[in-house]
Parts: sequence; structure tokens; C-alpha cells
Amino acid sequence: MCNACVIESVKETMMSRRKLFMGAAATGAAAIAASAISARPAMAEASGKVIDLTYVFDEAFPTFDGVPGIAYEEAVNFDKAGYQLWKITFYEHSGTHIDAPLHFSKDGTSVAELAPETLVCPLCVIDITAKARDDANAALEAEDVEAWIKQNGDIPKGACVAMNSGWGAKVGSPEFRNTPDGKFAFPGFGKSATDLLAQMEVAAIASDTLSLDPGNSADFAVHKSWLPSGHYGIENLANVDQLPAKGATIFVGAPKHARGTGGPARILALV
Amino acid sequence: MCNACVIESVKETMMSRRKLFMGAAATGAAAIAASAISARPAMAEASGKVIDLTYVFDEAFPTFDGVPGIAYEEAVNFDKAGYQLWKITFYEHSGTHIDAPLHFSKDGTSVAELAPETLVCPLCVIDITAKARDDANAALEAEDVEAWIKQNGDIPKGACVAMNSGWGAKVGSPEFRNTPDGKFAFPGFGKSATDLLAQMEVAAIASDTLSLDPGNSADFAVHKSWLPSGHYGIENLANVDQLPAKGATIFVGAPKHARGTGGPARILALV
Repeated sequence: MCNACVIESVKETMMSRRKLFMGAAATGAAAIAASAISARPAMAEASGKVIDLTYVFDEAFPTFDGVPGIAYEEAVNFDKAGYQLWKITFYEHSGTHIDAPLHFSKDGTSVAELAPETLVCPLCVIDITAKARDDANAALEAEDVEAWIKQNGDIPKGACVAMNSGWGAKVGSPEFRNTPDGKFAFPGFGKSATDLLAQMEVAAIASDTLSLDPGNSADFAVHKSWLPSGHYGIENLANVDQLPAKGATIFVGAPKHARGTGGPARILALV
Repeated sequence: MCNACVIESVKETMMSRRKLFMGAAATGAAAIAASAISARPAMAEASGKVIDLTYVFDEAFPTFDGVPGIAYEEAVNFDKAGYQLWKITFYEHSGTHIDAPLHFSKDGTSVAELAPETLVCPLCVIDITAKARDDANAALEAEDVEAWIKQNGDIPKGACVAMNSGWGAKVGSPEFRNTPDGKFAFPGFGKSATDLLAQMEVAAIASDTLSLDPGNSADFAVHKSWLPSGHYGIENLANVDQLPAKGATIFVGAPKHARGTGGPARILALV
């Protein structure tokens, strides 16, 4: 297909998707669940290499509000008992973690209620490192999704779409979170992209920064639309630069505490 | 092969394994890591059905010491802030959870340090429901492993071996943990089995009860040998009765908090 034809073909696909979107006003959680169940994990594509997409979670790990996300208290001492264990306290939205619909909707799906089928997904990785180098608050927009599709083909229903903004390289420095004068500054998803991904029945989005929305977001537009419509998100995803654009399978080890609005999760990819 | 030949063949395999075991005194963590890396996840065998092997974790979930394993404190209120989240406190060894080597060794491998390759494993399920019906403290012994191999073939290096004792049916009742007079009573692994599994370079064992050792264990022989030798364990695995004896792949969403001796985990199987 010639370049112009490819562009035309992508435009047509986008148009028909947008029409579908306009028609299907309130797909919501039920549609997501159904789409996820129909999406079989892309296991056959995995050669067996495991990539850990999870940061080690400790008192020093950067958090959105700047307060340490975890605290340790000795519960059993090895020298006294011959074994040992901690009593752990954490804020749910710390470390590499899940945002469940309940985080931004009063009675939404809790992290324990996410359909297990939505936790094993084909993984699509969209690279916005070039624009994030110029703009610390760069947003992954619909045009980035469309460019990815032009290059890689359709995004499967039930997929997880991860952003690679290059921010993982900053995780040990204050720049991961803010500018030198303390203003939030990191890339995130734009609502134009997540509206399009919702329309494609994507199950989850994943950010390699502290939030789904960019650091300078005034309205948390993605949190307020993506989560209440029955989708979940992942924040602080690690090692996204080691992932292929497509073909990997993500395993999302979401915590399963009752009534949870999210929480630290072990996340692995098979490539 | 005739029945007698099969039995002879199994015996010979066992003998050679035991010789190997006697010869290789201190295999330990290094050998386990190497074996795990050589064991590629059995992805090709998965048809794509996801089975959740994780219990919902809440204040009522039974614990070994009888104290609630989790507590909730409101950190952000939805009506006040437009979003919500909890501050959570838990004891590491509660709910469906991991026992890392560090739980029973002063300087062993923490849950954050488990090799990611050991968290995606071929899953072998050994059924001891018949003997557990007669004896609440039944142990899965070497002879049960040998019988499984005779029936199903070798246990792959890097596998996870799960016990199905039928105890999942009791999880909502006090019988999951103890007799009416308060004595611990539940099935577990016997050291004869875990010594054999260590020799076979199995990565993990998983119990469908509160502990790796049976409830009446006086010496915690499995905790004290399996964990310090660099292996990990899973306790309170759910839905094991829905699993095939072999052919499934287990994803172990072990938590990744620094210095962790274990902790609640999301565990899924693909069958």
C-alpha cells in the first residue's frame, strides 16, 4: 500500500471508530468485562523471557504527595523466634500500583473485583520519549495512538496500553516528580487518547510516571473519565524501555484486599 | 510399557534422584536461580483461561495466629475530595501470600529479591484429598510425589508444586484452621516430599491451607528446610480443585517491598 493509501486507510478506520464511539454512549464496565473475556491472553506469542515491570517499593520511593508510601514495624524477631516478619503500613497509591475504578468513583469496581481475565493482557507500548524530552508534561494523545496503529496494526480488545515516556531513567532523582522549584512535571495520558482506547475496548492503561494524567493537569481528566467508566490503570510501571511495541503479554498481579481502591502490585511481562 | 516396567522405571528414576541428592549437599539459592532461568514458562500449553488462585483478603480471613491480618484507615474521603483511598496495615503472612526465604533465615532472599523467572512457572498439582478426609493433619509425602510422577511424568525444573487437600471447601468455617477444641488441624507438606522436590530443582511449593507444614507440626520442618535453602512457598492458595494435575502455568504476583519476608500476593493460573 502506498504511503498516501496507508494514511487514508488509517483515517477511515479512525472515522469509523469515532462513529462507533458516538453511537455507543455508555459502554461502561459491563462492556469492558465482556470484551476482556473475549480477549484471550496472547500466550502463544511469548517466547518465555520474563521482564519485571515493578519497582522495589520502600520508604524512599517517590510518591505523588511526597509522603513516604510504606512503613515497617517489626512483628516477629528472628533472634527471639527463629523466624521473622513485618507489620507493614502503606498508602494504596504508592510504588508500582493499580488505580481501580473505585479510586475515582464512589461505588465503582474495587481492586479485588477486577475480572481476573483483565489481568493477563496483550501489551502495546506507545513511545513518546521524543516529545517528553522537549516537554516534561507531554501528553500521549489520540494522534500517538493512531500513529502506533499505523505502524503496528490494531490494538486488541482487552489489551493494556503502556506509555513509554523515558521517565524511568529519572526515578532515582527529584526530576521524576517535579521541577527544581517543586512544580509537578511528568508526562501522562491525554483524554483524547484514553477516550479512543475506551472505544477500542482496551482494558487498562499504564504510565511510567507517578500518574495517569500529566504532572501539570489541572482537572485529572483521565482519572475522572477512564476509571469511573470501569477501566483500571497502572502507575509507576518500570522497565518499559525494555519492552517491544507489541507482542508481549502483561501479567498484572493486582492486590486483592476487599474494598481496595488500588494498591501496590507485582507486574511482569512475558516477551 | 507394562505396569511392572513403569514401576521399575519410576523406582530407578527415584534412586538416581536420591543419589544426586546425596551427592549435591548444598545446592541452595544459586542452583535454584540457575534452574529457574533454564525453565521457560510453559506458555505454549496455555489455552487462555484464567483461574484466580487468590482469596479476597479482609479482616475476616483466617490467620495462623488468629489475629486479623489486615486493617483499614480512611486516608482520603470521596465526598470531601472527589476520590478515595485507604491507608492499609497488614501482617506479611496473611491472606493468599508468599513465604520468602528471609521469613525463616536471618539473611535469606527477601520477597523483593526473588528472581522474576521463578514467578512464572509450570504448575503441578498433587491431590491428597483422599487421605486428608481421614486425617486433618495429613502430609503430602515423597510417595505422593512419586505417584504423581508415575501418572503424569517428570516434574519440570523451576515448577511450582501445589497441594490439593480439599481444604479450600472449609475456608469460611473454623475447621479451616482448627478442631472444635482449638487445636491446629490442617494438611501440609511433609519434609520427605520437599527434600525430593528440592532435589528436582522445583522453585516453589504452594499449600491450600494456612501453612506449608501440617497443622500438628511440632518442628516446622518444611519451613525450616525449604525456605532457608533458597526456595519460596505460597500459603492459602485458592481454587486448586479447579486446576488440572499438569499443563497449567502459574503467575505469582509476589509483592516487591524491600526487605519483605513475604506478603499478600495475586496469584493466577492459565490453563
